[in-house]
Amino acid sequence: MSDPILLISGDSFSEQERTRLETALASAFVAGPSDMAALPDAVRSSVRAIAVKGHHPLGGAEMDLFPNLGVIANYGVGYDAIDVTAATERGINVTNTPDVLNDDVADLAVAMLIAQCRNMVAGDDLVRSGRWSAGENLPLNRQMSGSTVGIVGLGRIGREIADRLAAFKCDIHYTSRSRKETPGWTFHASPEEMAEAVDILVVALVGGVETEKHVSRQVIDALGPRGIVINISRGSTIDEAALLDALEEGRIAGAGLDVFLNEPKIDPRFLKLDNVHLQPHQGSGSSETRGRMAKLQLANIEAFLAGDPLKTPVN
Amino acid sequence: MSDPILLISGDSFSEQERTRLETALASAFVAGPSDMAALPDAVRSSVRAIAVKGHHPLGGAEMDLFPNLGVIANYGVGYDAIDVTAATERGINVTNTPDVLNDDVADLAVAMLIAQCRNMVAGDDLVRSGRWSAGENLPLNRQMSGSTVGIVGLGRIGREIADRLAAFKCDIHYTSRSRKETPGWTFHASPEEMAEAVDILVVALVGGVETEKHVSRQVIDALGPRGIVINISRGSTIDEAALLDALEEGRIAGAGLDVFLNEPKIDPRFLKLDNVHLQPHQGSGSSETRGRMAKLQLANIEAFLAGDPLKTPVN
Repeated sequence: MSDPILLISGDSFSEQERTRLETALASAFVAGPSDMAALPDAVRSSVRAIAVKGHHPLGGAEMDLFPNLGVIANYGVGYDAIDVTAATERGINVTNTPDVLNDDVADLAVAMLIAQCRNMVAGDDLVRSGRWSAGENLPLNRQMSGSTVGIVGLGRIGREIADRLAAFKCDIHYTSRSRKETPGWTFHASPEEMAEAVDILVVALVGGVETEKHVSRQVIDALGPRGIVINISRGSTIDEAALLDALEEGRIAGAGLDVFLNEPKIDPRFLKLDNVHLQPHQGSGSSETRGRMAKLQLANIEAFLAGDPLKTPVN
Repeated sequence: MSDPILLISGDSFSEQERTRLETALASAFVAGPSDMAALPDAVRSSVRAIAVKGHHPLGGAEMDLFPNLGVIANYGVGYDAIDVTAATERGINVTNTPDVLNDDVADLAVAMLIAQCRNMVAGDDLVRSGRWSAGENLPLNRQMSGSTVGIVGLGRIGREIADRLAAFKCDIHYTSRSRKETPGWTFHASPEEMAEAVDILVVALVGGVETEKHVSRQVIDALGPRGIVINISRGSTIDEAALLDALEEGRIAGAGLDVFLNEPKIDPRFLKLDNVHLQPHQGSGSSETRGRMAKLQLANIEAFLAGDPLKTPVN
């Protein structure tokens, strides 16, 4: 076997991130999984590790291109694009970058909720355009503090969101695989039941097939006319067509969305809505957090190559 | 003396608010203090109470137009437009609407800070314009959680802001007339001293002459290149020219402002800046809060006319 090399996969790596990986380890680069088959045999057989960034599916067929592959290190906490079962069957480790992004994602979730309630994008535009100076006023909007909020999925990120919302005097409800230790928050066995009890849903599920359309048409319909849906997880966790229908028909009050199906080529119906706050999947998008994610990804690869325990293994 | 009447002063009262006052009490209406002298003598001598909304100065000269005036009830917590000394000298009560708006104002302060750090207005625009779908990305931005934040004025609203920011793991510093009971927050004797120690200033002072330019050029200069200024108090509390200079020259990182000098005809220099988040003085602008403010204003007037203790007296 020739010298081990790292395959860097994903054209969304920044210049700085890619340089850091290439400086640390002998590397080859592909824009994404679909370009892997075109690599020369010698390169493919030398690949011991793949550093992945992006959401293009990486399955068993791609893994089989690399006979000496030992670790797939994902940049991001959500690894739903990687077929972990296929990796495990092949004895390939998968790692992700949990925890280092929890604060950023929770910050954005809370701010999207306030921005939606308080009509902040329109407020900024009213001032910046000079229309406020000319005498136009912002319509009254909606109080956020004290709202009844249901967290769909009280994992690490959901917990960070709930802790923040508690400081806004919100009445916290949650669903989760099991009842958790909380400061008196209300557990619900299903999102349908929770949607009946709350005005606002904040979706903080993991992605993947098991949570697909977990926030179903029935859940969205149960929210009612004061309903607001915040999603910082994956577009797949919500029945997006049902959400769009409810938003277009005014059957719920609004949404704040950082994630969508088919990003970035999202459903153009979203762009016409005036009752949504939209973000370009930037939940972990601070320089500080992206730096920590890049370091953790590299640390997992280096640990594997050194035979040390992985930092944040998935399988 | 003829039957007592209420004078409603301020063209920013909503239709609903004005109707509520007119239904509760026999009333006359003026757009603002400058129209008071034009009222007929018989109306002026019948006025026992004035309900004020807006920021136009109301001084002793106006008060002297109403020989039987007993109470000036302000809509809003900040009563800096009313000359309270002149009112007290004339035996006129002044009331405001504190506390009922604290949550809304604190929500907006926190959300403006996150929106500024995370570039959220640009993020929404990137998605909504279709540029994200076309391949453009939002530049990385700045983490908010864990920041070192100085609250300028730890009164009732400042405390609400600090409590929320503590849930974002911020290191809380504050200035105040006196050291307060806090969960370990850092007291500073002056804003200059605090600005050296923190990255972010959140201004939550009362308005009026005693706090004018309290956030001085020196304070702003001491913040440094990572400095962000959030203001939800009054435009007068900051040396606005110094703030504009620092923002234009990039000597601080940004600002989130709900209040300005000469609202709504604000300095047009603000409109050209890409490092600010701007709001049209909507801190208390939710329907829920504005309803509570209107009710409290009327309750103060009714208490005065019934000879009962005032709900929220200022003097």
